[in-house]
Amino acid sequence: MTGFNQPLGGNDMPRFGGPATMMRLPFASSAKGLDVGFIGIPMDHGTSNRPGTRLGPRQIRDESRMLRPYNMATGAAPFEHLQVADLGDVAINTFDLKKTVDIITAHYREALSHGIIPLTLGGDHTLTWPILRAIKERHGPVALIHIDAHADINDTMFGETVAHGCPFRRAWEDGCLINDKVFQIGLRGTGYAADDFDWARDKGWTVVQAEECWHKSLTGLMAQVRAKIGDAPVYISYDIDSLDPAFAPGTGTVEPGGLTTWQALEIIRGCQGLAIVGGDLVEVSPPYDPTGNTALIGANILYEMLCVLPGVPQSPSRFSGLTF
Amino acid sequence: MTGFNQPLGGNDMPRFGGPATMMRLPFASSAKGLDVGFIGIPMDHGTSNRPGTRLGPRQIRDESRMLRPYNMATGAAPFEHLQVADLGDVAINTFDLKKTVDIITAHYREALSHGIIPLTLGGDHTLTWPILRAIKERHGPVALIHIDAHADINDTMFGETVAHGCPFRRAWEDGCLINDKVFQIGLRGTGYAADDFDWARDKGWTVVQAEECWHKSLTGLMAQVRAKIGDAPVYISYDIDSLDPAFAPGTGTVEPGGLTTWQALEIIRGCQGLAIVGGDLVEVSPPYDPTGNTALIGANILYEMLCVLPGVPQSPSRFSGLTF
Amino acid sequence: MTGFNQPLGGNDMPRFGGPATMMRLPFASSAKGLDVGFIGIPMDHGTSNRPGTRLGPRQIRDESRMLRPYNMATGAAPFEHLQVADLGDVAINTFDLKKTVDIITAHYREALSHGIIPLTLGGDHTLTWPILRAIKERHGPVALIHIDAHADINDTMFGETVAHGCPFRRAWEDGCLINDKVFQIGLRGTGYAADDFDWARDKGWTVVQAEECWHKSLTGLMAQVRAKIGDAPVYISYDIDSLDPAFAPGTGTVEPGGLTTWQALEIIRGCQGLAIVGGDLVEVSPPYDPTGNTALIGANILYEMLCVLPGVPQSPSRFSGLTF
Amino acid sequence: MTGFNQPLGGNDMPRFGGPATMMRLPFASSAKGLDVGFIGIPMDHGTSNRPGTRLGPRQIRDESRMLRPYNMATGAAPFEHLQVADLGDVAINTFDLKKTVDIITAHYREALSHGIIPLTLGGDHTLTWPILRAIKERHGPVALIHIDAHADINDTMFGETVAHGCPFRRAWEDGCLINDKVFQIGLRGTGYAADDFDWARDKGWTVVQAEECWHKSLTGLMAQVRAKIGDAPVYISYDIDSLDPAFAPGTGTVEPGGLTTWQALEIIRGCQGLAIVGGDLVEVSPPYDPTGNTALIGANILYEMLCVLPGVPQSPSRFSGLTF
Amino acid sequence: MTGFNQPLGGNDMPRFGGPATMMRLPFASSAKGLDVGFIGIPMDHGTSNRPGTRLGPRQIRDESRMLRPYNMATGAAPFEHLQVADLGDVAINTFDLKKTVDIITAHYREALSHGIIPLTLGGDHTLTWPILRAIKERHGPVALIHIDAHADINDTMFGETVAHGCPFRRAWEDGCLINDKVFQIGLRGTGYAADDFDWARDKGWTVVQAEECWHKSLTGLMAQVRAKIGDAPVYISYDIDSLDPAFAPGTGTVEPGGLTTWQALEIIRGCQGLAIVGGDLVEVSPPYDPTGNTALIGANILYEMLCVLPGVPQSPSRFSGLTF
Amino acid sequence: MTGFNQPLGGNDMPRFGGPATMMRLPFASSAKGLDVGFIGIPMDHGTSNRPGTRLGPRQIRDESRMLRPYNMATGAAPFEHLQVADLGDVAINTFDLKKTVDIITAHYREALSHGIIPLTLGGDHTLTWPILRAIKERHGPVALIHIDAHADINDTMFGETVAHGCPFRRAWEDGCLINDKVFQIGLRGTGYAADDFDWARDKGWTVVQAEECWHKSLTGLMAQVRAKIGDAPVYISYDIDSLDPAFAPGTGTVEPGGLTTWQALEIIRGCQGLAIVGGDLVEVSPPYDPTGNTALIGANILYEMLCVLPGVPQSPSRFSGLTF
Repeated sequence: MTGFNQPLGGNDMPRFGGPATMMRLPFASSAKGLDVGFIGIPMDHGTSNRPGTRLGPRQIRDESRMLRPYNMATGAAPFEHLQVADLGDVAINTFDLKKTVDIITAHYREALSHGIIPLTLGGDHTLTWPILRAIKERHGPVALIHIDAHADINDTMFGETVAHGCPFRRAWEDGCLINDKVFQIGLRGTGYAADDFDWARDKGWTVVQAEECWHKSLTGLMAQVRAKIGDAPVYISYDIDSLDPAFAPGTGTVEPGGLTTWQALEIIRGCQGLAIVGGDLVEVSPPYDPTGNTALIGANILYEMLCVLPGVPQSPSRFSGLTF
Repeated sequence: MTGFNQPLGGNDMPRFGGPATMMRLPFASSAKGLDVGFIGIPMDHGTSNRPGTRLGPRQIRDESRMLRPYNMATGAAPFEHLQVADLGDVAINTFDLKKTVDIITAHYREALSHGIIPLTLGGDHTLTWPILRAIKERHGPVALIHIDAHADINDTMFGETVAHGCPFRRAWEDGCLINDKVFQIGLRGTGYAADDFDWARDKGWTVVQAEECWHKSLTGLMAQVRAKIGDAPVYISYDIDSLDPAFAPGTGTVEPGGLTTWQALEIIRGCQGLAIVGGDLVEVSPPYDPTGNTALIGANILYEMLCVLPGVPQSPSRFSGLTF
Repeated sequence: MTGFNQPLGGNDMPRFGGPATMMRLPFASSAKGLDVGFIGIPMDHGTSNRPGTRLGPRQIRDESRMLRPYNMATGAAPFEHLQVADLGDVAINTFDLKKTVDIITAHYREALSHGIIPLTLGGDHTLTWPILRAIKERHGPVALIHIDAHADINDTMFGETVAHGCPFRRAWEDGCLINDKVFQIGLRGTGYAADDFDWARDKGWTVVQAEECWHKSLTGLMAQVRAKIGDAPVYISYDIDSLDPAFAPGTGTVEPGGLTTWQALEIIRGCQGLAIVGGDLVEVSPPYDPTGNTALIGANILYEMLCVLPGVPQSPSRFSGLTF
Repeated sequence: MTGFNQPLGGNDMPRFGGPATMMRLPFASSAKGLDVGFIGIPMDHGTSNRPGTRLGPRQIRDESRMLRPYNMATGAAPFEHLQVADLGDVAINTFDLKKTVDIITAHYREALSHGIIPLTLGGDHTLTWPILRAIKERHGPVALIHIDAHADINDTMFGETVAHGCPFRRAWEDGCLINDKVFQIGLRGTGYAADDFDWARDKGWTVVQAEECWHKSLTGLMAQVRAKIGDAPVYISYDIDSLDPAFAPGTGTVEPGGLTTWQALEIIRGCQGLAIVGGDLVEVSPPYDPTGNTALIGANILYEMLCVLPGVPQSPSRFSGLTF
Repeated sequence: MTGFNQPLGGNDMPRFGGPATMMRLPFASSAKGLDVGFIGIPMDHGTSNRPGTRLGPRQIRDESRMLRPYNMATGAAPFEHLQVADLGDVAINTFDLKKTVDIITAHYREALSHGIIPLTLGGDHTLTWPILRAIKERHGPVALIHIDAHADINDTMFGETVAHGCPFRRAWEDGCLINDKVFQIGLRGTGYAADDFDWARDKGWTVVQAEECWHKSLTGLMAQVRAKIGDAPVYISYDIDSLDPAFAPGTGTVEPGGLTTWQALEIIRGCQGLAIVGGDLVEVSPPYDPTGNTALIGANILYEMLCVLPGVPQSPSRFSGLTF
Repeated sequence: MTGFNQPLGGNDMPRFGGPATMMRLPFASSAKGLDVGFIGIPMDHGTSNRPGTRLGPRQIRDESRMLRPYNMATGAAPFEHLQVADLGDVAINTFDLKKTVDIITAHYREALSHGIIPLTLGGDHTLTWPILRAIKERHGPVALIHIDAHADINDTMFGETVAHGCPFRRAWEDGCLINDKVFQIGLRGTGYAADDFDWARDKGWTVVQAEECWHKSLTGLMAQVRAKIGDAPVYISYDIDSLDPAFAPGTGTVEPGGLTTWQALEIIRGCQGLAIVGGDLVEVSPPYDPTGNTALIGANILYEMLCVLPGVPQSPSRFSGLTF
């Protein structure tokens, strides 16, 4: 065993007991000395349809209790190479959305000052903008891999510039993004104008609508994404509603015809080798998740992000040798 | 902006407010002057297993609130080309199924007299027969695209000729269908006899069992369907239980191994160019749909029907240019 | 039958069909000509624990469908004496709570200009403050009957003055209340300080904690309330969480040991004879109400308010004559 | 141990296993040789609002699995004195309500020919009328103890004479009832006319509205009921919606302000000594009962009926001796 | 503010965020220096009907997040007088019930060695026996206030001596109880023999069946309980199923006709002045608690126990002065 | 019609009524004279995360009610060739897991003595080991087709050798398996060590991880499985968690990225022609299955096993003739 923090194992405490931290890891009150910190942002005042993402961090942590340390597909053993802890939640102001985004930026500025890679448990998608502001301060503009049913590039919603449909417009305005290294995957559904997604395309972003992804593996897509990004710093923003509602029912702005969990895993595993500087998993809404499975899938996606961070070697599992 | 009715937008009223009409469109008490009318038929006394479809129209309308006017995949903008309204519900007799079917036929006869295309929110599948009777009076026999887990061609159920397992047998007896232009897609499960589906095949109908659809796109299938139908008038009957229960849990006679929402969208989008004269979406059962997502998917399928009606041009979205 | 609007009856349209307006009454786009208007305020950005009240108005309307016109206990027949309609929802700004309260005040100012009595479907309790501001403009300070688990008199929450724990503090500051005619009934639970409720008592308000109400009828209490209020204008604010969670599980800040529905009905029926100028029913949270029954009870309480408005005669039902 | 059928005990088979018969009693295909038979009537096509009672018998049986043989309050030991079995379900015609009522009468005529007391698991309340027709054939007109939120004495619903709001009107027309020995307990809510309940009162029936029952024991009421009924044959019809929705959420036409389970138990236990010839428990709707507790309470009420049947001695438990 | 641990307040972190410890108190890895420790025992392998109590501690902690420090009814301010922390969970062996009880006893022996009062979050009722064994080692035999629907005094269940129906039989055998100071309150339902409860009575225990408690306050009962117990050390064991299922639906062995939350609060508050040495709250089953309210009520009951511990002064709130 | 037992048909009894046996088949108290027996094992004390599988057999039987006798895909008509009945449940000891496994072996030893093929309704996966012990006694070592998210080959869990993560390790130790004819399909997720699955591979077992199955048919895989197994006796163990949680949400140890129901059907149908001697369907957890659909899918998988048993001819359905 290493000197790194380890998730509390099922042979030491039943899975249904123990601390309700992310993966039952130790809680840390400071990012100092960590390589990676899980941070919760319990907010839903940026949502426009169903609420509930304010409870996302609590539920994701709860359902993360089954996660064991080793990735059986990729052989990744993140807890042998990284010091990881749960840094708790950001104390957002649930009565004021505009103050909340500034609170988030300040919180991440402090956390990033310790050199960590933050992996965020959302919370609604508004949060990615203030995180990217802090990321830019430390790393400069970043490449973006954004998996979502929605482009989230509205100029305003109901006249407001801060909302869960606007974060990437704001981040672009703030110069947080390297335009030719921005990828939006899984977009679909209905829009306010027939050319909603073209604003992004016109900036040089690559938009892969869900229809392009149907009935196929995304392994090939990710090879091209990696090639285009190269060694630029990368941020991953995973909106759980990118998944078809069959796979992720517990979210607020549901669009049928989405990605599968197989594709989600291919996307995240396809990020291996990139210079990832942060990631988030947003829009899990526990009140619409009666089994807890959407939160559980969210926890798994965050774990898969951990498994592809720089410094974590891969050792793919042995195949069956059968061809079919 | 046109002079056509528009769905109430999210920038004018939050999505979770406003009228609970279909897509938050205006309600109309008469079909006069409309091109398309959404009509609800709140009934479940034709169901044989789980009940609840009586609440389908209310729940589909409620969950339709997120639908924006533009189709981001096909570029369809139906509200720029068609006058659409919500015509409310048919006042069925919930204590007498046989009277109910006559009430429905009379209701549609009146609505069709104004020249509209009716899109129906079910309700159990019994309702398609009385609609087809009224359709035949106006349009003569029609081609049929019937997506379902079940053939619904029983001669009787429990000795009765009116039930949700019999509508297409009745419609055939009434001469409502053009036999060589009938397509049943998605059939599967268990039957009362090993040759249950052969009655349809023997009439010249094309039966595409679910097994034929697994692991593939249905775009090619629809090309053949369109070729066979040509310019005949077409009715689309979409039973939500055609979808695998992973995609549509909230229904009453569940059969595993069904279609995906990707395929459902391919089927409806593949109807573009046909002379559609009506359509329905049936068998959503809200009591078995704790998240509301099945109703939401039903609302989306009805919207997609709207997008392929005659007179709505398509303008497919720009692809990413990536090959994978 | 009168010339007044009537709820759509179950013999004209099955209860599970028809428009999802309050009691299936006609929708009206203006308060002009009405005596009473039901108004929805779909908001939850003032809530501090569980969200979901944004969906309250839609769910209350949906579940109000069973309400028939006559009150079998009191003999009230409100639709024979009052012109009532559903005025739809206030277009609140879900991304900005401070703007929302001003939108509400403006909306009610306009509605009140037509002389109606507004009965409000919440929404979180923040909304009572902006309503009371508009009420004061029209009627001057009012008596208040406030039924709730919480006093909602915090100076601030998380440093903010606008939140669902603060409306009565704000209303007091704005001079909306007649202090010796304010009654808070059902308060209980835990507090931020042992003397939380004493701020109200020190203003001259009458605080009846839940413990005083246990195991007894509240008919006697209401006689005293009526005597103290006399003919002053009265506003009724009913927070569904005043009820014990056994009776109203679907709400956000649950406190055990609360009122019963028998007591709730005694309270509202005990307001008969008062000069009621408005009322609200707040804090129904549909995502925490899997059966819909909490919304249904909310709808009943609003109906009972309607039954005790000025101008509605009472005609109590015949008793059994049995003594027990 | 006696020679009577016994419920399968928890020491022989875990409670969550074993046959899903009522109380895990033996199934019997004929009433011959029995004293009491539990009969299910799986129907909901008589319901006017929420559906689901068709699944009532299955769910009541399932949740009856915890019932042990001895009544700890009354000392009743019904399985030491009566031969009891589960007679399965009536094969109703779910597509034709009018045929269904005749099927029920025929079924009970046959069962009653063996001299049993039938205890019925509903199903919607329509079923009581055809049962009473069969009861009358065997026993003549009967006294009735009818516990319900609704009078169920409508002449018609939607123009139909067979519906769950009409059974007691029909039974009265058929001469099934002894008018001065009819008791309706728990009525409340809203009505189609202010004097809805007076039709019953005018027939000589005793109507005890819910409001008369609030905040008190019903032991005294039942003493008077027993005195008035004397030794006439009695039928008990228990509609689960007589209970307040806090106690019985899983039903279709919910009315707040109802009875408690304490009162329900007092009512049934208060029938001890009467010449009971049959009973039913109706309107449990499993789709609206996410915990199963409403079905469980229904099972308990049926068990309590069994405990007060003629021939079952009582032996009340020892009190604590404390006075409070 | 004192030097004692305080629950994390809602003005420092939104209620829906922060650590999922009991009342958002600090976690402590040792009982050293504490006055009171909350301890979770995540187990359900002692249950005989519905499972799920293994998740009780996690859910109780989660729902305890709304609890503020001051008791508005009694004026108790426990965090001004006691050092309290969350001690986490006992690492029970979920595959072996017999080993689990020994693990529990050892765990409490260690915790009690630091002089704390343990308040336990269950878990199924099996756990009280091993706790009482450890309590006896430290305090000798104790008085017992046991609130429950069931006596839990079976000699065996399915031939086993360790099960959730047996703990008080085992504790009696082990000499843990002062027989004339044992009170069982709320017992009811069905039994394996008509005299099931008499075993307890014959030992000198006071059994107060639920029927004795109906329709009344239990304040008087508790005065007598206090008088009989005097200054003996007392253990409180609160089974959530003592409550009627209306109040606590989320549990495994449901019996209708139970206590109310008003009575539950009267019972716990009525323990003020007793020499309480420990307490537990058991049998919350989250999978049967879709709203989380049963867990929330469990958290409140544990908080109320904290408020009556020795050393916590009471300061009852001001009454309204109204008489009714 | 044959002399074989037939499922009760929907034209004889509505689907929502009738006995809650598997497929509404007759119950049999002995295996004598049967070809196939459905046996329930209601247990969950071997589970390590979420509980609830103890209720699996009851729920699977309940939801099996829609299953008709004929397989519309394969033409199998099992009830024309096999005598099948529901043999009820094994009386396991829910308080002692070690005794339970011996009870199961003894129960199956007796059942197998009558020459039946047992198809088991679980229950947690612990049960496969004791069944395989009895199978070995009768048939010698067997080939195994094991579909699961987990390998279930742990040496111990929490120090125990009997748990739902260990059955195939135990079966291997007991010589129940033919090592080169063991296939594990669908494994995935996280592990205790990077080489968790290699223990199996090193024994000669074929491990097909879920990733190998993504985006493709498993028909080809099964051809190879059949070729390798030849005419050896085969046992099929189907863990419902092999399916992706989109398809089977109601289970206890959920792993995203799993199989589809299309693949599940291909696997079972691909077993046709093998010398199947038994099968089980395990890990359905009704408390996490709010729609009942997971149990329904479990029932279908068991039915598909029945359809491929030796002696059941296949007659595949007619294809559409369309190529796409």
